[in-house]
Amino acid sequence: MQPRILEVRTKILKKNDELARDLRTRFADQGVYVINVVSSPGAGKTELLTALMRELREQGVRVAAVVGDLATENDAVRLEQSGCKAHQILTGTMCHLEADMVENALEDFALAELDVVLIENVGNIVCPQSWDLGEDLRMLCFPSTEGEDKPLKYPTLINTCDLVALTKMDLAEIVEFDTELATRNCDEARPGVPVLRTSGKTGAGIPELARFIRDRAWSKAQVESRLGARSA
Amino acid sequence: MQPRILEVRTKILKKNDELARDLRTRFADQGVYVINVVSSPGAGKTELLTALMRELREQGVRVAAVVGDLATENDAVRLEQSGCKAHQILTGTMCHLEADMVENALEDFALAELDVVLIENVGNIVCPQSWDLGEDLRMLCFPSTEGEDKPLKYPTLINTCDLVALTKMDLAEIVEFDTELATRNCDEARPGVPVLRTSGKTGAGIPELARFIRDRAWSKAQVESRLGARSA
Repeated sequence: MQPRILEVRTKILKKNDELARDLRTRFADQGVYVINVVSSPGAGKTELLTALMRELREQGVRVAAVVGDLATENDAVRLEQSGCKAHQILTGTMCHLEADMVENALEDFALAELDVVLIENVGNIVCPQSWDLGEDLRMLCFPSTEGEDKPLKYPTLINTCDLVALTKMDLAEIVEFDTELATRNCDEARPGVPVLRTSGKTGAGIPELARFIRDRAWSKAQVESRLGARSA
Repeated sequence: MQPRILEVRTKILKKNDELARDLRTRFADQGVYVINVVSSPGAGKTELLTALMRELREQGVRVAAVVGDLATENDAVRLEQSGCKAHQILTGTMCHLEADMVENALEDFALAELDVVLIENVGNIVCPQSWDLGEDLRMLCFPSTEGEDKPLKYPTLINTCDLVALTKMDLAEIVEFDTELATRNCDEARPGVPVLRTSGKTGAGIPELARFIRDRAWSKAQVESRLGARSA
């Protein structure tokens, strides 16, 4: 990359980082826990998140979603089948979400009335890496149908993730997915990252994933409320 | 996108286009037919291309491959199991191949002794769209495991493709892939695009795909040789 380009790119990223920091402060003030969900196209994100939102509701968590796609509003429609609200962002030719798109989408939501916001990113396991959306947790969906080697071949994004959900695990046996090897490869790319096994189709692993998120969200809310009480 | 950024981006793309044009002229002079193979990560590109190269060899076509990944040389090793030569390009954090990377990789090959070069792009169905590699044909691999809706949700790249290979068709029934619907969605995103059904695993559709490519390659070679004779 030439110096001129690098400079411009750095400026855009810096602007995004500043906006993401503002968003993060706003999320903390409103007591909402935010997850940036990334994966390849067709990794089963929408199926997983629809099941997850339904489960979170049943566990008493107030949740909504924002979803980015180049075209079509299909995913927001699918996500709303969970009974929760979803806002579609259309990115046109853009290969990732940026903080300002999320900020605009949030105008639809009363943040103070939510516990968790899920942001479903554009299907891409390279470009979303550099774009902070102000999230608390970045989750990679990694489907059994993609092959065990993907964390090693696409190391940059997974290396910024805090959680991996293995998806489409109902197909693992059929596609001869070596779950142990895939888990080891995740750990090699991102040492210590928790890896949960899920299937949006059968519902396997969804209660565990929901509890993981709920615990993180409650824990954040407690910390924020203690900090709030101190500064009040 | 801000005007400043747009301007810089336009300049980079223009430079790439000029280099791609030079490559295209060079490929024509050497009588080699070049295919830019794009898809999501884990779409079965490498499996398909390994089977395809083996079949092309058997059909008397001299073929080699160039393959781009962020990390690991796994794919070149796998492609060479076909008995053909493969060169690995490591892109680092780059989400697509560019013409200069292909030009450098070609130093490994005696182009005049080849009929077909396959370029396996980085797994990404957004960003490779704008980057001409000097190819004659752009082929999208679209796996049954990804869901029928992908051509509508990611329309920009498929809209630059000349051929779609449905991959992992051995799994179509298990994942309840509606092949007719997927084919219609391809046609909606890119009217008239040929759609071939393949499986790198079972070999289904590979001879047909190889014949399609061989016919295109021979036809280009004949045109070039007639043009050469005329200008000589």
